[in-house]
Amino acid sequence: MKLSPAIEQLVESLKRLPGVGQKSAQRMAFHLLERDKPGASRLSDSLKHAVETVGHCNSCRTLTENDLCSICLDERRRDSGVLCVVETPADVLAIEQTSQFKGRYFVLMGHLSPLDGVGPSDIGLDKLEQQLQSDNIEEIILATNPTVEGDATAHYIADMADQYNINTTRIAHGVPVGGELGYVDQTTLGHAFSGRKQFTR
Amino acid sequence: MKLSPAIEQLVESLKRLPGVGQKSAQRMAFHLLERDKPGASRLSDSLKHAVETVGHCNSCRTLTENDLCSICLDERRRDSGVLCVVETPADVLAIEQTSQFKGRYFVLMGHLSPLDGVGPSDIGLDKLEQQLQSDNIEEIILATNPTVEGDATAHYIADMADQYNINTTRIAHGVPVGGELGYVDQTTLGHAFSGRKQFTR
Ligand SMILES: [Zn+2]
Ligand SMILES: [Zn+2]
Repeated sequence: MKLSPAIEQLVESLKRLPGVGQKSAQRMAFHLLERDKPGASRLSDSLKHAVETVGHCNSCRTLTENDLCSICLDERRRDSGVLCVVETPADVLAIEQTSQFKGRYFVLMGHLSPLDGVGPSDIGLDKLEQQLQSDNIEEIILATNPTVEGDATAHYIADMADQYNINTTRIAHGVPVGGELGYVDQTTLGHAFSGRKQFTR
Repeated sequence: MKLSPAIEQLVESLKRLPGVGQKSAQRMAFHLLERDKPGASRLSDSLKHAVETVGHCNSCRTLTENDLCSICLDERRRDSGVLCVVETPADVLAIEQTSQFKGRYFVLMGHLSPLDGVGPSDIGLDKLEQQLQSDNIEEIILATNPTVEGDATAHYIADMADQYNINTTRIAHGVPVGGELGYVDQTTLGHAFSGRKQFTR
């Protein structure tokens, strides 16, 4: 049996969402059409509006429909002298939820990946270099992912920062707090060992 | 930190999809805006089109944008004399996937639920009764869910069918094929025992 074309098309479109397969897409389509047409219309409008208006912050490159995102508009954060480099807007959200960081960000929207043709300017490193030259930055915190590409990107940026005598730090990687050693993946455990510190009492 | 309004609104709209919480909604929004704006536009259009066109089949009440769904348009299925009553369009899909059933359907779009004010006409039982009178129906297969409401609805329809001397059957409920007894819920196991059959060799 085939679904009617309008429903089939909706199911196919929903399947483009990450983590949504055929079954979930059908469940979503039926739910919206049987019980929440206002929700479906609202989602349609929100998608259209976001696609038309959302671009990148002129300063940090994160996603926003304004010229500058709310963090870059915050003078205290701009003037903090600390810049944290992350790969994605989701990383910004995650760090903001800790409430630990009061500086500004630079969002690469990816990482260096020569094999895929992603070079420095594709992840905004030319723009970052301008900021290292002109802005008053004292410390760069490298918060790229602990992957081969993330590490390579971190090294590239650290070399760049050296030219401007800017101090560079890397966030700690290791066993998650509350995590059990037996359930932690090998890479994380490797980082936990190589990044070990003197035990103080 | 707050997301920019357009992204926040998109995240809130995505959260109305079943099974999607804050984290998944954020991941979906970022994915679409960072990497798949065409997909986001297509989803927006599909939602709008489906909301505007999809209604109910005039005969079986399932979701379709046409007057009659593809199954009701199939003369062999209409003339089969067998009508299967289910609660939702998703149930139709599930049964169609077995390729076992060659008759037609009647989709209640719910079940009797007096406490929620859902009576017979709210689930189309007046329309079903018209079909029992006018159409040539020999058997009604009750495939409502094995819940209190689904069972009550099945009983109500069986009583109605009796008035028109139409034979009524109920699909079997029991331990799923390939399922392990220890992992089956109590209700299913109860059905499996009460519905036991003579063992034949
Ligand atoms: Zn910004
Ligand atoms: Zn139909």
